[in-house]
Amino acid sequence: MKRLTPPSLIVTPWKIISSKLALPEKWFTVRRDIVELPSGRQVDDYFVWEAPHIVMTVPVTAEGNVIIVRQYRHAIKTITYQFPAGAVDKGETNEQAAQRELEEEAGFQAESLTHLGCVASYATKVTGTMDIYLARNAVAGGQRHEDDMEETEVFEITPDELRELLSTHDIQQADFVAAAYMAFNELSK
Amino acid sequence: MKRLTPPSLIVTPWKIISSKLALPEKWFTVRRDIVELPSGRQVDDYFVWEAPHIVMTVPVTAEGNVIIVRQYRHAIKTITYQFPAGAVDKGETNEQAAQRELEEEAGFQAESLTHLGCVASYATKVTGTMDIYLARNAVAGGQRHEDDMEETEVFEITPDELRELLSTHDIQQADFVAAAYMAFNELSK
Repeated sequence: MKRLTPPSLIVTPWKIISSKLALPEKWFTVRRDIVELPSGRQVDDYFVWEAPHIVMTVPVTAEGNVIIVRQYRHAIKTITYQFPAGAVDKGETNEQAAQRELEEEAGFQAESLTHLGCVASYATKVTGTMDIYLARNAVAGGQRHEDDMEETEVFEITPDELRELLSTHDIQQADFVAAAYMAFNELSK
Repeated sequence: MKRLTPPSLIVTPWKIISSKLALPEKWFTVRRDIVELPSGRQVDDYFVWEAPHIVMTVPVTAEGNVIIVRQYRHAIKTITYQFPAGAVDKGETNEQAAQRELEEEAGFQAESLTHLGCVASYATKVTGTMDIYLARNAVAGGQRHEDDMEETEVFEITPDELRELLSTHDIQQADFVAAAYMAFNELSK
């Protein structure tokens, strides 16, 4: 890795002078930070959405097929493919939440989980990060939980079909694309 | 692709009954939708952040190296690697904005842009989507624009180094991972 900017230019974190709630809603809590930049300048209105921590699984069957779901995404008004994912409940470990979401959304259970990485979906403005797991030997089982805010179609696809789906120019979710390639990498080891 | 849920289960978009501003801030505009779900149930407090449309470039030099930047991301309080990206200004095309951001952030100009795809970073809650371009034959040139809210270190790395960077378990931005793999795919064609 070759640095192109001068060695004297080192990126540094900002200092939070104060922080207060700007939108105190349970499902969408936004805070307003007053921050001091490395330049010394103070910015009085930096908004941050305090989003929950999420876990996602890429479920793969013993035959090597992948389980995906299809859901409506209200902000972009589009139906997209995605892997089972959801927020970690209080008292749950990441792994417990991953298994629960896999069962509730897709109706699958997995033999083991392998951590693939941690991603942020909007790192400048949204706090919530997402841990991604490969769920091996996924089998149909358990109880799907039908939630009217999360209508879900479930599909089993081959890795080749998934690669084709990823290469379309339709809108896709960045974490779906990232997780799929992370899983391909892990499976090719 | 094999459908596992019954054919009668078809995901459908929600109906917006009404929409009003919940946080009318220039840099973080949140609206509150009253929506009707496919079940017929009405939800009175679905919040959506109206984020700008973004363009991102994956700049590749004639030698096949990749240009990346390193910036502080306040919401996750972490310094991350990323590709040059930014919002499309009024009156600009996606391509113009992509070239401008590439020059301002990284100090590079590209011979041609190839559209790799369009991703959403938080599709349930954030409107803004991102068009991703491969920027071929990127050369140092133009005028970097030093912005104290966007301190930027610039690096040139080999594709192998980039693959290694992507495989770390540190927090990474989902769109960075997605764009990198989209670019690898396009370059291997």
